[in-house]
Amino acid sequence: MTATDVDVEKAVLEACQRAKVASRSLATSTRAQKDAALEAMADALVANAAALVEANAKDVQRGRDNDMSPGLLDRLTLTEARIGTIAEALRFVATLPDPVGEVRRGSTLPNGLRLIEKQVPLGVVGMIYEARPNVTVDAAGLALKSGNAAVLRGGSAAASSNEAIVAVLQDALETVGLPRDAVQSIDAYGREGARVLMNARGLVDVLVPRGGRDLIQTVVRESTVPAIETGEGNCHVYLDASAPLQRAVDIVLNSKTHRVGVCNAAETLLVHKDRVGDVLPAVLQALADAGVTLHVDGATAQVAPAGVETVAATDEDYATEYLSLDIAVKVVDDLEEALAHIRRFTTGHTEAIVTDDIGSADRFVAGLDSAAIMVNASTRFTDGGEFGLGAEIGISTQKLHARGPMGLGELTTTTWIAYGDGHVRG
Amino acid sequence: MTATDVDVEKAVLEACQRAKVASRSLATSTRAQKDAALEAMADALVANAAALVEANAKDVQRGRDNDMSPGLLDRLTLTEARIGTIAEALRFVATLPDPVGEVRRGSTLPNGLRLIEKQVPLGVVGMIYEARPNVTVDAAGLALKSGNAAVLRGGSAAASSNEAIVAVLQDALETVGLPRDAVQSIDAYGREGARVLMNARGLVDVLVPRGGRDLIQTVVRESTVPAIETGEGNCHVYLDASAPLQRAVDIVLNSKTHRVGVCNAAETLLVHKDRVGDVLPAVLQALADAGVTLHVDGATAQVAPAGVETVAATDEDYATEYLSLDIAVKVVDDLEEALAHIRRFTTGHTEAIVTDDIGSADRFVAGLDSAAIMVNASTRFTDGGEFGLGAEIGISTQKLHARGPMGLGELTTTTWIAYGDGHVRG
Repeated sequence: MTATDVDVEKAVLEACQRAKVASRSLATSTRAQKDAALEAMADALVANAAALVEANAKDVQRGRDNDMSPGLLDRLTLTEARIGTIAEALRFVATLPDPVGEVRRGSTLPNGLRLIEKQVPLGVVGMIYEARPNVTVDAAGLALKSGNAAVLRGGSAAASSNEAIVAVLQDALETVGLPRDAVQSIDAYGREGARVLMNARGLVDVLVPRGGRDLIQTVVRESTVPAIETGEGNCHVYLDASAPLQRAVDIVLNSKTHRVGVCNAAETLLVHKDRVGDVLPAVLQALADAGVTLHVDGATAQVAPAGVETVAATDEDYATEYLSLDIAVKVVDDLEEALAHIRRFTTGHTEAIVTDDIGSADRFVAGLDSAAIMVNASTRFTDGGEFGLGAEIGISTQKLHARGPMGLGELTTTTWIAYGDGHVRG
Repeated sequence: MTATDVDVEKAVLEACQRAKVASRSLATSTRAQKDAALEAMADALVANAAALVEANAKDVQRGRDNDMSPGLLDRLTLTEARIGTIAEALRFVATLPDPVGEVRRGSTLPNGLRLIEKQVPLGVVGMIYEARPNVTVDAAGLALKSGNAAVLRGGSAAASSNEAIVAVLQDALETVGLPRDAVQSIDAYGREGARVLMNARGLVDVLVPRGGRDLIQTVVRESTVPAIETGEGNCHVYLDASAPLQRAVDIVLNSKTHRVGVCNAAETLLVHKDRVGDVLPAVLQALADAGVTLHVDGATAQVAPAGVETVAATDEDYATEYLSLDIAVKVVDDLEEALAHIRRFTTGHTEAIVTDDIGSADRFVAGLDSAAIMVNASTRFTDGGEFGLGAEIGISTQKLHARGPMGLGELTTTTWIAYGDGHVRG
């Protein structure tokens, strides 16, 4: 390591250590205190909106200078109106129930020992994400409500915005008597800082990466701190032999085109061979009308309506999370072939079946291994808000700890507490 | 890699791949099928007891030749009686409820979408452990009951026993129509095989290490497969200012001496300074009478009863999981000092307080961050059987996925299933 690396390591580990100390105050804070902090944070963001927009302008300018894509630039840009929306989200989090202290299970054991398993905060939550200042606020708010300290690495492209936001949030925390160190940014320490965060085992309790596939895979691969794999979604819609035509059109169109850049958008369409004559052409027409590029197998190409253009699909198409107005299409002989295809290519996020057959629905649910299965519903419903979790820190595509949308409860662990009156084991 | 390493990698990955395929059959097996398999496995172990003892004798002989310690040799040794006990444990697992299919939560959303979160098997469970053939059977049984395939690495010291056991279990699985590949041993592939298992990401869903600190830390550090940290226990007992004398003696004695080689045994005793005159000497006397070596601070040394020998404790003592008839003792000024000491040295397993003061009990529970907290009860109660989980695959000392004793439910993940009738997102 260079001398600078040593300094960065020291600074980031000290930040994590301060977060750990702060997390102890948060763990015993009442809901009233935490909600007051969320309101104070929202008020402070609105009161400082002009200054935040100014800080953000530096990042946006640098982004333009570095030829950042229009989509990323848009996500990076803060306006006073957007800051108002972000502040409202904090106020909404304040209305949600406190996950801390909720009893998951409990019983009085045969020997009279009274046992409960109770939700407690994880401690220190690390977030690594890319050029989205709104995530800085979201993550800070969700961590706080669940009693956790947050150490945030939002990327150098948004460093000016993130540091200004965190300073505002820290001041707000102090006004309600909570420690500033409960929310910290380590953007000043660059990539080396992120590396230190990923290896702050014992200080950071969980890392939640949010962003593109490369970011997530890097964090999952390189962290010694436990990380949660989120948000990669190669989602499938399967049209069963019994799929009603209009329902099929509606669900495919909504799954693919309702919002294309999100992890719960559909990327591949599988169609039972019995419906290549009626359902498939109607779906292809609707997708083409919506501007979707169709990457198709031979059987699909043959039934594309006149005027609907297609391009030949390869295995790479079936493995791709397009996040764009593209879809891969394949005809399958039966439900089992659809299941085999999905199991081969899925990232384990969300799969949907359109069917009128109860046996097909049951087999589809039982035969897959994904975080969410939709029966006659759009893949777009896999979302913390839609699922009634209130808010969402990310969508887990791994199997341990949390699966699917992660709300406040997923930012907790549990403690077992046993109350006796001198119980000893015989 | 050497040519042999390439062969080992290929063989172990193929074993994991076969386990993954087998896991699909298990995931949809009924409870009746799985329980029949457990009974068949128990019957087969008893029927083949003589042959298993013979296979085990080779390992025991090799252990003797390699100067294995008497404790390890005892854990390694199988007798027909021990095989009977191991078989009974399988029959007991058959009596437990099936964790698969249990609904964790569910609701009908405002839009009418019917949503449930249901427990499903993890898929393939890898176990890495040391020279304990009974764990081979336990792990296979718990994995099977929870619908998972198991890939087992029990160590070269027990390779002959483990391979013989797994062959018997595989034959039993076939008699009830379940795939042999549901339980596999990779002991034949040595340390390199374990390394491949730890990196079989995408094929193995979770790794559970069981054994000493070195084994567990190696697995947690080197695995790219998600691993669960288990069973390291530097457990504390704190005697509060209000601790009743006899209760204090009973709980300390039970926590320390009921069974010394286990993770939930107490390793450090902390005593409030107000009780150095009465409670502490009585506890020291009881420990000394039980043959416990006392590693003590200066304040404790001064009040040791005549005839009770003590040795001076260092910070290393307070950090040590003795797993022997030794205990570290320290006098603290107050509860907060006890909490600070525990937070500094604990492995996060189990801590106990002896008190008559409700405020002290509440503060002790709130001020710590361990898997289990005992109020007026022995640390020895942190155990899947004692907690009513029925069986235990290990005791998690990490915060994600599972905390404390892990039963069958902890060997599952969940799937969210939404039932609609053409629902699309607006």
